Amino acid sequence: MALNKQPYRGTRDFFPKDKRVRDYLFTVMTKTAESFGYESYDGPLLEEVELYKAKSGEELINEQIYSFTDRGERFVAIRPEMTPTLARMVAQVHREQSKPLRWFSIPNLMRYEKPQRGRVREHWQLNCDVFGTPGRLGEVEILQVAVELFQNYGASSSHFEILLNDRAIVDAVFKNMMKATDAQTYRLYKIVDKAKKITHEALHKMVSEVGLDTIAENIFYHYLQLSTFEGVKSFLEKNDQTEIATAFSSFVEFTEKANLTEYLKYDPTIVRGLDYYTGIVFEIFDKHPDNRRALCGGGAYANLLQIFNEDPLSGVGFGLGDVTLRDFLEVHKLLPNLEIPVNDVFVTFQEDDGLDATLKLAQSLRKNGLKIVTSLEALKFKKVFPTAEKKGVKFVTLMGSDELAKNQIQLKNLETKEQHSLDLADLEAILKIIKA
Amino acid sequence: MALNKQPYRGTRDFFPKDKRVRDYLFTVMTKTAESFGYESYDGPLLEEVELYKAKSGEELINEQIYSFTDRGERFVAIRPEMTPTLARMVAQVHREQSKPLRWFSIPNLMRYEKPQRGRVREHWQLNCDVFGTPGRLGEVEILQVAVELFQNYGASSSHFEILLNDRAIVDAVFKNMMKATDAQTYRLYKIVDKAKKITHEALHKMVSEVGLDTIAENIFYHYLQLSTFEGVKSFLEKNDQTEIATAFSSFVEFTEKANLTEYLKYDPTIVRGLDYYTGIVFEIFDKHPDNRRALCGGGAYANLLQIFNEDPLSGVGFGLGDVTLRDFLEVHKLLPNLEIPVNDVFVTFQEDDGLDATLKLAQSLRKNGLKIVTSLEALKFKKVFPTAEKKGVKFVTLMGSDELAKNQIQLKNLETKEQHSLDLADLEAILKIIKA
Repeated sequence: MALNKQPYRGTRDFFPKDKRVRDYLFTVMTKTAESFGYESYDGPLLEEVELYKAKSGEELINEQIYSFTDRGERFVAIRPEMTPTLARMVAQVHREQSKPLRWFSIPNLMRYEKPQRGRVREHWQLNCDVFGTPGRLGEVEILQVAVELFQNYGASSSHFEILLNDRAIVDAVFKNMMKATDAQTYRLYKIVDKAKKITHEALHKMVSEVGLDTIAENIFYHYLQLSTFEGVKSFLEKNDQTEIATAFSSFVEFTEKANLTEYLKYDPTIVRGLDYYTGIVFEIFDKHPDNRRALCGGGAYANLLQIFNEDPLSGVGFGLGDVTLRDFLEVHKLLPNLEIPVNDVFVTFQEDDGLDATLKLAQSLRKNGLKIVTSLEALKFKKVFPTAEKKGVKFVTLMGSDELAKNQIQLKNLETKEQHSLDLADLEAILKIIKA
Repeated sequence: MALNKQPYRGTRDFFPKDKRVRDYLFTVMTKTAESFGYESYDGPLLEEVELYKAKSGEELINEQIYSFTDRGERFVAIRPEMTPTLARMVAQVHREQSKPLRWFSIPNLMRYEKPQRGRVREHWQLNCDVFGTPGRLGEVEILQVAVELFQNYGASSSHFEILLNDRAIVDAVFKNMMKATDAQTYRLYKIVDKAKKITHEALHKMVSEVGLDTIAENIFYHYLQLSTFEGVKSFLEKNDQTEIATAFSSFVEFTEKANLTEYLKYDPTIVRGLDYYTGIVFEIFDKHPDNRRALCGGGAYANLLQIFNEDPLSGVGFGLGDVTLRDFLEVHKLLPNLEIPVNDVFVTFQEDDGLDATLKLAQSLRKNGLKIVTSLEALKFKKVFPTAEKKGVKFVTLMGSDELAKNQIQLKNLETKEQHSLDLADLEAILKIIKA
């Protein structure tokens, strides 16, 4: 029986035209991160499951992780996310590194997902993180990196927005203002996380089951109505949370100075899970009505190194997956046309004896940094140009019997249609036209 | 108990300075492959084990593969090599693609190895393959790609050599000349593969156990003595294998025209396993006495698509791993110094009030394509330069109380030590100096 030609369920084959799209996504990620002085790192594909247990939620470990026991009885998993690896690596070196530590990576990750739009089992994810920044400037910088990244893809505030919250505010509301117990706080976090996806009735039912008094319930509903930085500030101040209000205002002020205002929107329902984050939390949302969902999420954390018994080191980071990003760029028509490759010259010959000369010419052109596609057999004139088009070349060289006799080539510019007869030996003249 | 900070056994953490080396290796691979018009592809991390069983040797499947059963009862493996994925992908599209098909990839692969020098469990491997070339030109082109790749790392024929054989020759010797049965041929391949690593006595013992007649044994020993293209040609001709001799001579002639002669050496012991290859087979060897081993291997194959019930499509390819390549470049001192990153400007301020102005300056400089490292807190003059050095910047901007008052910066070139006072508003003047 013949083998199946399709890729493993939920994964993708990247044929050249798909790979060019991925390369484009990664190049813009890399250039943006490097424009902020972030340095690229990577870790192993496999980690011991212990590492994920220590950091991640139970759902991930139980249902979504690709885990198995290796031949040496180690219980390992294909990385489902990069942060645990990042924490492990930073824990090794943070003491001798000068701060801030700015790192980025674009690893492939696997989760056992039910394949559907925007969800695949293997995807790539940009991870940008900065450690050891003074005050709230790391949070501002990470937002800047995210915004400039989207700008570098050609997107603006008409395409996306950043919904933002601060875990310090959420904690102040639940614990200081509502006097919720830890168990109640846990349930409130879960409710907030779902608030936008459920009906009012369902929300009220869930809240009533938490066992809060009426005053606390009212505070909670008031909190859920907040939608501006001004609003949250005055809400906190009126409820005697001046310190939290001032700290958040100072952060908001920095975002204004960093030209982020038009992108940011306060959203009380953004909390991003229960553990881990301690400062701002945010999600970047597509504004397109057909693709209204989170593209990217991140936040600030204080205790990432705790599981390694290391001193606290504050950090902020975000992750952006290739699948959701590609959908976003496609729905907004921001993806460049990458159907065909980009090459410089298609070197051809029309008589069998032309092979040797053209192989040598191709070699010389490559040594000068050009991308050369060679024809390995005599090619009829009318076959040259369709192939040239598929290969995305700017120039074609031709060598018929006349040229062969004179040791010349015809060099044709496919855009201007200009054509030159040139001596094969005069590489300088050939290069001058190609590189003009 | 604190978690282990070390990576999973046999895998590597790529801290920024190691990642820069990997990026350098990959950039040269990509540029070289693209200079020949090869297009990048990639496939999934996991494949069904069936695919490897159909193509690879038993050792790989039984002992070296990371395989497990997924939650949907599929028996899958982390890819240990790229060729089966490549074959699966080419089988999907080869009918509608114009030939030759030139593809390359740099996937991460995993094998359950006992970690030792040059052997790790996760490595990356450049795979270059060309399909559907006329005659023997694909074989020549793949050798050219490999040679130019090493040249692009700064290596020459004093650093490496290509040991080459042709499976058509080996088959002619064993089957036509020695009249070996299939079972004997199988054993002879195994012996040839080991010939260089064992003593003469061990070799003779193994040969005597194959059960050949004396004439055949003598032919075998004569074959093992061959070491030049001339020698193999006359050996074949004398033994009535004119067709094979001519075909090989035609290949050798092309390699001369492609300037490959100084790199190539005939080696009768290169066979590269039993199945799969049908034309040339080669290994690139390091010439350094401390690192005398194969860096890279490849060859030509005719039946890669057979397992998918597809028509034969001839192909040639090679693979080069990142670990052996790095060792090669290090032993020959060909690796550039990548200890520190490369950035353009370190933007600093010496008074707290300088933050806003410098954040804006940094943003403007980034928009002009520069790599900017910002100081997020007031930095004393004497602290600026050690940090600048670690960050690999060419320029530093300073903003003390004088500059703050006048809305100016000092721009210092760290190489020439030239320093300019410039208006913050005059971005053009700042850029002119930086981009000069």
